[in-house]
Amino acid sequence: MTIALIGGTGAEGRGLAVRLASAGLHVLVGSRERQRAVGVVSALLAERGPLPLEAATNEEAVQAAGTIILAVPFSVVDEVVDNCGGRLGPHSLVIDVTVPVVVEAGHARLIDVPEGSAAEHLRRRLPPEVRMAASFKTLPARLLAGAAPLDCDEFVCGDSDEARERAVDLVRRIPGLRPLDAGPLDSARAIERMTLLAMTLNRRYKSRDARFRLVGIAA
Amino acid sequence: MTIALIGGTGAEGRGLAVRLASAGLHVLVGSRERQRAVGVVSALLAERGPLPLEAATNEEAVQAAGTIILAVPFSVVDEVVDNCGGRLGPHSLVIDVTVPVVVEAGHARLIDVPEGSAAEHLRRRLPPEVRMAASFKTLPARLLAGAAPLDCDEFVCGDSDEARERAVDLVRRIPGLRPLDAGPLDSARAIERMTLLAMTLNRRYKSRDARFRLVGIAA
Repeated sequence: MTIALIGGTGAEGRGLAVRLASAGLHVLVGSRERQRAVGVVSALLAERGPLPLEAATNEEAVQAAGTIILAVPFSVVDEVVDNCGGRLGPHSLVIDVTVPVVVEAGHARLIDVPEGSAAEHLRRRLPPEVRMAASFKTLPARLLAGAAPLDCDEFVCGDSDEARERAVDLVRRIPGLRPLDAGPLDSARAIERMTLLAMTLNRRYKSRDARFRLVGIAA
Repeated sequence: MTIALIGGTGAEGRGLAVRLASAGLHVLVGSRERQRAVGVVSALLAERGPLPLEAATNEEAVQAAGTIILAVPFSVVDEVVDNCGGRLGPHSLVIDVTVPVVVEAGHARLIDVPEGSAAEHLRRRLPPEVRMAASFKTLPARLLAGAAPLDCDEFVCGDSDEARERAVDLVRRIPGLRPLDAGPLDSARAIERMTLLAMTLNRRYKSRDARFRLVGIAA
């Protein structure tokens, strides 16, 4: 199983790349510039030892993988879809990881997305035959990139049962994460705001690792 | 310390009344009709034994208490403020518990509130000198009304440090609840959507008790 990580050289992308590759998945770390991807993969392999990580351009990664994780900043989502959308196969699953947050003068706020959430924004821009899910939105990038246990729940929502099942299976492969099927894509309206809430709690309680667990749910 | 529970005869109100009175607080259970409040208080005392619960009209309860918990359905918030707002003292703290959710054909959705959240909607309608916080929004009413341990976190946001501190102190008195200071009132935009998310997860995982805990926060 090959996973493409678009924007795989950012903090969240690198963290996901290592966690997924450590779970035995073949991960294509994508970047706009091949050299940047090569540098990041070399550094990760030097740090973490042998892992099934490979450098690629974003376009190559999309073309070669059945599951594509979009780990770019929300501000460049449209550009990435313009550049890579045509390379998605009919059975591709796109997993959206973006959160429409901007930090201004030390204060984080949500960008107003007319569709209601970044996930719904992206869904409108993808070819209709491609399936889409959203996940990994509430996991702190810094925690993902480290080696500490994740020890939390991970919300998955999606445009279809198939999309959710495939994304849930992927999340379950990462030790310490319990996937929770949160239903249709518009659940991202809650989930993306929870990321902002976690950032607020981090600031107030001097943490960087706030994340969620559901009590009362046997999943 | 006397707490007024406006709409204290509903499921959430009854649950809060018992949990707060069990923590030793004097609770005025308010209703539009005194007889209804008297009936509910009698039933609660018969069920749970002696507790500092007292029946009142909503107006009497607001007048007599320094802390007023608004546990009515969101659809009647404006009416309650019209009827009772003039009786709030300058040092009153109003705690908003409402969630703007409607259930239509078995499907729950959020009412579009122009202010962004039910909490911000209420803030605009209260006299400026009254302090306001929001809490108890993500706690399932059924769980509150039972005797099982709550065992979760409870988000508090508010219009001032004073409002948040007073609400946090109140939440902390209930065994099994850890209060989390989630900052300004607009955090209710996330918190109210989390209630909807918990309802979605309850349906998918056949539970009625989904609630939240933060990992990585020492509070």
